[in-house]
Amino acid sequence: VTLGIDIGGANTKAATADGRYAESVYLPLWRDADLAGTLERIKKDAPAGGPVGVTITGELADCYTTKKEGIDHIAGVVASVFPDVLFYGTDGRFHRDTTDARLFSAANWSASARYVGRVHGDVLFVDIGSTTTDIIPVAGGEPVAGLTDFERLTSSELIYSGALRTNLATMLRHVTVKGRDSCMASELFAVTGDVYLLLGRIAPDDYTCETPDGCDKSPEDAARRVARLVCCDMSELDNYDVMEIARQVHRRQVDNLIDAIRAVAERHGLKRAAICGLGAFLARDALDELGMPYTQVQDARLSKVFPAYAVACLLEGEKNVP
Amino acid sequence: VTLGIDIGGANTKAATADGRYAESVYLPLWRDADLAGTLERIKKDAPAGGPVGVTITGELADCYTTKKEGIDHIAGVVASVFPDVLFYGTDGRFHRDTTDARLFSAANWSASARYVGRVHGDVLFVDIGSTTTDIIPVAGGEPVAGLTDFERLTSSELIYSGALRTNLATMLRHVTVKGRDSCMASELFAVTGDVYLLLGRIAPDDYTCETPDGCDKSPEDAARRVARLVCCDMSELDNYDVMEIARQVHRRQVDNLIDAIRAVAERHGLKRAAICGLGAFLARDALDELGMPYTQVQDARLSKVFPAYAVACLLEGEKNVP
Repeated sequence: VTLGIDIGGANTKAATADGRYAESVYLPLWRDADLAGTLERIKKDAPAGGPVGVTITGELADCYTTKKEGIDHIAGVVASVFPDVLFYGTDGRFHRDTTDARLFSAANWSASARYVGRVHGDVLFVDIGSTTTDIIPVAGGEPVAGLTDFERLTSSELIYSGALRTNLATMLRHVTVKGRDSCMASELFAVTGDVYLLLGRIAPDDYTCETPDGCDKSPEDAARRVARLVCCDMSELDNYDVMEIARQVHRRQVDNLIDAIRAVAERHGLKRAAICGLGAFLARDALDELGMPYTQVQDARLSKVFPAYAVACLLEGEKNVP
Repeated sequence: VTLGIDIGGANTKAATADGRYAESVYLPLWRDADLAGTLERIKKDAPAGGPVGVTITGELADCYTTKKEGIDHIAGVVASVFPDVLFYGTDGRFHRDTTDARLFSAANWSASARYVGRVHGDVLFVDIGSTTTDIIPVAGGEPVAGLTDFERLTSSELIYSGALRTNLATMLRHVTVKGRDSCMASELFAVTGDVYLLLGRIAPDDYTCETPDGCDKSPEDAARRVARLVCCDMSELDNYDVMEIARQVHRRQVDNLIDAIRAVAERHGLKRAAICGLGAFLARDALDELGMPYTQVQDARLSKVFPAYAVACLLEGEKNVP
């Protein structure tokens, strides 16, 4: 059976095309993460022997001077573990040679959207992960988004915020607390994972990245982290105040999603969406408000590793592998 | 001679009241920094034997569950090195006992502004450091700002951004690059120190905190960090593009300063300012645009450790130390 792997800056995901194997590992590449060791473990755990397809998005991690350096390094590590690996390019094809790094930079959304197009036809594909949100128009069965992250950032096809790792200080500059407008501390004190834990939208086990202060994934610790955003501890704010902050962050994130979804959908005349990712609950909030129908592309387990699953399915469907 | 020490979350500063000794150490408390060792070194380097006064602002660091835990810990470490130390409280007095932690939380601006009031009379005191900006009205010779960080955040007396450590993703949500409006990546990719290095407003030696990616304090490395904000490397952006981003960050920071200075000055009818801190150049930019006269409170060397110098001078002037 074909194995797909998606190597991001913060997470490495793997899945088989039959959907029986799915794994996501928090693996921050900018911290000397053991990518080779993780891939060896995936090789051991996953059903053996089939083709292996890979997408890469970790080349932006700031351990790499250029994206090419990132692609070269990641592709080299992958090939050392899986010698016959094929890399998915934003041209929609699989390649053995990754010399043209532009083709392989930030390619996972392309694999996901291409596979979604085959299954669901023309649709707005929305994948909300721990760190980023992809909003990809699929038209004529093909993803028609900008090919670089920068092009997508300038056209609402990429929002660099997600459901877990996003620093709350980057979401809001001002927040209302105790009826007063307050600026926010610009530190990495709390993340979106804290907000959605407090609001009951995720369970502690869904909070798969580390916490900013290294403390627990409990509502108590999350509340303390959120309070720090306005330079308070929990002797100065009560739980209601913290929940008010959390609701304002959620509102802002959903508003940003609504704006982007509306812009991209109107540009391409798309009337329905396909959603996935561990932050799919945010896509649902936005699409419900917009009144746009949607389907989740797979069950929750495969939805969270969707690019890996998609690249496995695309490779399994290839007839002319080079 | 009297020694003053200001223990912040990111920096510990020390100075003597005669101004001969001045030292600033980048010492991030949230990373198990060796505060006792740093204080021992200050004790060895500074002229010995006089009284020691201390202000604390590091209690918000996320290694502490509450501010009281932070004050207790920091005060305990200080007292283990300087047994006869006196702590400055936001009531304007020195204390041996720090049990009432609220009195000692974020007290450094109060010491600075109180001393400025004695020297310069009624004035708007503006201290821009690596991380934060204090905008303190001095009226009737006394600082009349809110006593907690939260009160100051809600009244423009505290802006939680500074000239070095501030994550650029918290300053701007959108930026214009190559004539296009782009969202920003929400990672800690680049800081204000990178911007002011690129704009030639600080020298590499002034960039006293660490870089986000651990690379050099060179314009080349700073440009690469800034480019990452829009998910680009330096094969995708040129130097002009990066400088345009830097100029937009500077513009936003000066605009925020202008708004806050105007609001606080008008509230208290203040017509002139006294400025200090390693980010004093930003205060000058804002005050020049506002047309408000100002003086720098000390030469650049003492300006950068001003709270430590101020607490030393205040303690030296005390007649009735408890």
